[in-house]
Amino acid sequence: MDTGFAPERGKVGMWPEGAAYLDGRFMPLAEAKIPITDWGYRRSDVTYDVVSVWDGAFFRLPDHLARFRRARNELRLKPDEDDAAIRAILHELVRRTGLKRAYVAMDCLRARPPKGVPFSPLNARSYLLAFACPYVWLFAPEVIERGIHAIVAKTPRVPPESIDPTVKNFNWGDLTRALFEAADAGADTAILVDRDGFVTEGPGYNVFAIRDGRVVNPDRGALEGITRKSVHELCDELGIALEVRKLPVEELRDADEILFATTAGGVMPVTRLDGRIYGNDRPGPLSARLRERYWARRAEGWHAEPVEYGEG
Amino acid sequence: MDTGFAPERGKVGMWPEGAAYLDGRFMPLAEAKIPITDWGYRRSDVTYDVVSVWDGAFFRLPDHLARFRRARNELRLKPDEDDAAIRAILHELVRRTGLKRAYVAMDCLRARPPKGVPFSPLNARSYLLAFACPYVWLFAPEVIERGIHAIVAKTPRVPPESIDPTVKNFNWGDLTRALFEAADAGADTAILVDRDGFVTEGPGYNVFAIRDGRVVNPDRGALEGITRKSVHELCDELGIALEVRKLPVEELRDADEILFATTAGGVMPVTRLDGRIYGNDRPGPLSARLRERYWARRAEGWHAEPVEYGEG
Repeated sequence: MDTGFAPERGKVGMWPEGAAYLDGRFMPLAEAKIPITDWGYRRSDVTYDVVSVWDGAFFRLPDHLARFRRARNELRLKPDEDDAAIRAILHELVRRTGLKRAYVAMDCLRARPPKGVPFSPLNARSYLLAFACPYVWLFAPEVIERGIHAIVAKTPRVPPESIDPTVKNFNWGDLTRALFEAADAGADTAILVDRDGFVTEGPGYNVFAIRDGRVVNPDRGALEGITRKSVHELCDELGIALEVRKLPVEELRDADEILFATTAGGVMPVTRLDGRIYGNDRPGPLSARLRERYWARRAEGWHAEPVEYGEG
Repeated sequence: MDTGFAPERGKVGMWPEGAAYLDGRFMPLAEAKIPITDWGYRRSDVTYDVVSVWDGAFFRLPDHLARFRRARNELRLKPDEDDAAIRAILHELVRRTGLKRAYVAMDCLRARPPKGVPFSPLNARSYLLAFACPYVWLFAPEVIERGIHAIVAKTPRVPPESIDPTVKNFNWGDLTRALFEAADAGADTAILVDRDGFVTEGPGYNVFAIRDGRVVNPDRGALEGITRKSVHELCDELGIALEVRKLPVEELRDADEILFATTAGGVMPVTRLDGRIYGNDRPGPLSARLRERYWARRAEGWHAEPVEYGEG
């Protein structure tokens, strides 16, 4: 995979608040800005991915790079950098932060057609940006410890036929609306259902229902999450039955336990849904076991790729 | 409406390529950039509006300001500037370009929650940005003259229950997908239909069907366009029957004429749809009449608010 691309090396830990790479150049995250006329902003014509670094190692970086590549291809976004270059850039970004636990995002967005050329996305170049910053918890650690409080949103998830959720995107209009519903109800977040009543996902995470010792996870209408995939593997390791199929929202409500999974927080138990209390308001046994196992496996170096911090 | 807000005045025509206002400051458009971590980009958590300036006057500025205000309220975006301030800023922006024909955009976007605060949109401030630049033609004038070639997209429009199209937004995932369909078919653009087979809108414009002397315009699933509203008024002035109701896509296909309306191009006749040729490949009589009347009325100062260019 080595095309010989070698990013300019900066000092280890020079930008602990965050480091960015934008259109060919490294800079502190706070300086990374995009033109207000670029379609990546103005039409949300962009895809992205996020990988975590924990204890000095990337988690499943090849999986993230492959998903990011597939998404770029789907949206016909073609940055100058290939996978080898992106990988090298991400390592360099984390080096420059010096962080051992980091949130590392990569975006590929469309600029805009030059003057005098028809306003078609075919006529606009696209470019890469990426950044590393201190690890982001989608929910505060104490909320994950306590158990997340969720609602089922009234806002239905955008259908995959309109916008494909497996191509990670910023078209968050429905997700943001759902978050306001959650805030108004005093909950932490909201799960979105499709128009046929099947569970899809929440803003930034996949959803699992656990009933009678079996884990059920929607097979469509949601991002094919890397942490989700990790939960599937953990179920296999632990001998827990897993069903990947349509999940009616009633089945979610009637579950024994509910679980979320995301790069920005890992495996996260839910204790309340629309006011119903699960597991006596504490993370249920299988949820707790999966969460524990997830972090234990990561501590063991599972799917890990050590960051090339190298010399200062 | 005057709250006494007076933007700092620059020289008339100092930035003919484009002038921007971002978070309290004026600058050349090319310098206007937003942080890559702001949710306005990262979650497309933003609303916007666009008003045109033609021959030195805004067109229906109060309508645009009112729609923009309603959209901000729907998305709970609260910039520091009120309508009077926004109006003054837009005038100042056009002054600084010195342009007599301009495209003037205003966005209100969400920043992001400060460190250590839950990741809810309730916890993030929002801010205004705006810019003026040379008038933008969504389709080149020669394409409008020739007549637009469109297709009906296979990609269905995102349903209003998920993302409300009357709240002008950048969640363009479906629209961009449709534009690629159009490009692949050698067409200029694509009209999107909802999942029940009713016409909604295209990327950046409203759609009208004309049959037997009657103009039909969808009543839902689309932006309530200001140029659309102007077409309604022109129908009234010209004594043309107008029906605002559900428009089945078959009825659009079987129309005598098809028409688009947008701020960035005005009233625009269509001559081809999925290879069907309308009006012998020339703009039809009612389309041509409405287009002519639109520009004639604008030249007369219809709904016009002269830009306050003032002294140099």
